[in-house]
Amino acid sequence: MRNHPSLPIDADRLWHSHEEMGQLGATPKGGVNRQALTPEDQQARALFTKWAQQAGCTVETDCVGNLFARRPGRDPSLPAVCTGSHLDTQPTGGKYDGAYGVLAGLEILRALNDAGIETERSIEVVAWTNEEGTRFAHSGSALFVGKVDLAEAYNATDPAGIRFEDALVAINAKGPLPLGNRPYDSVFEAHIEQGPILERDGYAVGIVTGARGQTRYTVTVTGMEGHAGTMPMTMRQDALVAASRLVVTLEQIGLDHPPQGVCTVGALTVYPNSRNTIPGTVTFDIDLRHPTQDGIDSMEAAIAAAMQAEQHKGKVSVTCTVLDRDAPLTFDADLVALLKVGADSLDRPVMDIFSMAGHDACYLAAHQPTAMVFVPCKNGISHNELESATVEDLAAGVEVLAAAILARAMRR
Amino acid sequence: MRNHPSLPIDADRLWHSHEEMGQLGATPKGGVNRQALTPEDQQARALFTKWAQQAGCTVETDCVGNLFARRPGRDPSLPAVCTGSHLDTQPTGGKYDGAYGVLAGLEILRALNDAGIETERSIEVVAWTNEEGTRFAHSGSALFVGKVDLAEAYNATDPAGIRFEDALVAINAKGPLPLGNRPYDSVFEAHIEQGPILERDGYAVGIVTGARGQTRYTVTVTGMEGHAGTMPMTMRQDALVAASRLVVTLEQIGLDHPPQGVCTVGALTVYPNSRNTIPGTVTFDIDLRHPTQDGIDSMEAAIAAAMQAEQHKGKVSVTCTVLDRDAPLTFDADLVALLKVGADSLDRPVMDIFSMAGHDACYLAAHQPTAMVFVPCKNGISHNELESATVEDLAAGVEVLAAAILARAMRR
Repeated sequence: MRNHPSLPIDADRLWHSHEEMGQLGATPKGGVNRQALTPEDQQARALFTKWAQQAGCTVETDCVGNLFARRPGRDPSLPAVCTGSHLDTQPTGGKYDGAYGVLAGLEILRALNDAGIETERSIEVVAWTNEEGTRFAHSGSALFVGKVDLAEAYNATDPAGIRFEDALVAINAKGPLPLGNRPYDSVFEAHIEQGPILERDGYAVGIVTGARGQTRYTVTVTGMEGHAGTMPMTMRQDALVAASRLVVTLEQIGLDHPPQGVCTVGALTVYPNSRNTIPGTVTFDIDLRHPTQDGIDSMEAAIAAAMQAEQHKGKVSVTCTVLDRDAPLTFDADLVALLKVGADSLDRPVMDIFSMAGHDACYLAAHQPTAMVFVPCKNGISHNELESATVEDLAAGVEVLAAAILARAMRR
Repeated sequence: MRNHPSLPIDADRLWHSHEEMGQLGATPKGGVNRQALTPEDQQARALFTKWAQQAGCTVETDCVGNLFARRPGRDPSLPAVCTGSHLDTQPTGGKYDGAYGVLAGLEILRALNDAGIETERSIEVVAWTNEEGTRFAHSGSALFVGKVDLAEAYNATDPAGIRFEDALVAINAKGPLPLGNRPYDSVFEAHIEQGPILERDGYAVGIVTGARGQTRYTVTVTGMEGHAGTMPMTMRQDALVAASRLVVTLEQIGLDHPPQGVCTVGALTVYPNSRNTIPGTVTFDIDLRHPTQDGIDSMEAAIAAAMQAEQHKGKVSVTCTVLDRDAPLTFDADLVALLKVGADSLDRPVMDIFSMAGHDACYLAAHQPTAMVFVPCKNGISHNELESATVEDLAAGVEVLAAAILARAMRR
């Protein structure tokens, strides 16, 4: 393999772009609440579009709001090199989850401009819609690769009952491009680790070798409403008591699959949610993850048994529906090797790491060669307003990413 | 004691008034959603006011929306006889909880008019504001007797953040009268039992001898938000897992105090309530009830121990605040005896019964002689859209109530 070219990155510029982007949806605690397709997301899309255009890109939008900023190569007919991530955040999120991958790509384009480098292939920096999945279930990258039916996704509603398609239209994010039909030479994504391993082991950059399997369920527990004073304890069909038993059991199922199996109930809603009415219905979501398919299968079996055991008590009925299943995946071996060679050429020590979070790259990996780099975040904290990263680590990740992207983009 | 006068009740009129009132906030399942100070409650207040005026009453409103319909007696200077209940319902309530007590009083006024009877004392039928306590914490009857500070109640907000005072003004329910200052000779309340005992034992009417003690808490469990994929199970501070353990323990505390001790978590809210974020905060309410003070004390001690045990696990902090405490109470012996004598004179067999529900009468009992009658509801179901009662039982309750009210109202 030939020597890697190296590209001078402007760490200050990278940092200030994060600071400026982080103002959009900024929370009093220093985090970001920029949920998909809100006015804050609209502002973030406009800022990214402006920056990309200033860097000489054309910016196009597809019918689910994915934004494609293209820096043309010498031969526009060759499949482009793609990098990017997402601009939406959790309701109590931080400045780096998602935004880092988009701004890393933008910094590479700016650095290429500064260095006057024309690449053989075009480079596209993509901001994928709704990666977090908090407001709407399906992400723009999953739709892009055809993993989800478009009509179904358009009709899915957020907790306020707003359809995904209507939310796209409301912030003018529904573009003319159809889904997919954009073959890439390769796809790279930079992201904060969102876990404690790089920081603990003292690496600024991790090369991601693969990603967890994940299954998400939605569960409805149906009992019967009743008066909180007059209904004797033994005659109750309390949906919240049953759901609470399940939440406790689900935690145990996670604990029973160490070290990396996890099982989470993040959202739970009680009906009618009145102080003096025994809850008649509770709905909640389950998110389970494991690095191996055997682990996923074992956790799914334990969950099914727990649901059945609760139902067999005869007080409530339990329905459990799979929202989606992602199998564990291994990233493209050539791209992973290229990232490592690039890091070596920069004298940048890196470690292999495995992703327990889902990312846009996990969907894209199904259709084109894909790989990721991680940088540390403080104490491994993410999906939290305390999310924090250093300028040095962010820049190191971009340097390693840039070396691999430049190597791929220079190929005929 | 002299012979009771008896008053011919129009059971059909009583039934049709319930049917008409039940249209206001009617739900597709046949129940009623007429929460306090909503447009539906406003309609109910207007209908009651119209009916009371048609029955010859003056209708006045106090500063928390309590509605006083007064049928003047021969000597208006004598303390009046009061009866009534509330027109607000649970979010998934029925036609009879509350409305029965108001419409029973109205039927007595109409029957007095039909019979051309003028009473010595005035009779007031009162619709007390917000008895259910689902939208706002404090009831109009508690405010009337000075149990709760008015400024505090005005500033309390519903789940949407609307102040109680603003909600009163919004539906034009804030009247000119100050709180209290309306001494009553006696207070009666008719209500559906909301439990299974009268139906099981075959009685149309129960004479209520007393009411449960009740303590309500609001609890906040604070852990730490985190990423549902990357935060290892053993490092989590999951507020929902901790809250769920508490909900399960609280049910056990109820079960440990048979036969009439009850402990309920009716409302629980998760923050940020996102599928892939470990819950950082959970708030919930506890409602515990027991017929005796010893039982209340024992349950409160068990709850305090459970909170402490959860906190001692070191993952979350738990704060538990008393919203209010009602001691167990015994209704006025003279009024209870009068109700029984009246029932005897009607050849109506009645049983003694104890109320596990709170009622407006429980607050009023602190300041004037007070008593209640119960009628059965089908399968003991209340706070539920399936709530049901028969015209015969409803009319029987009004007859027994009317005999006692007439006896008191004829006294000089």
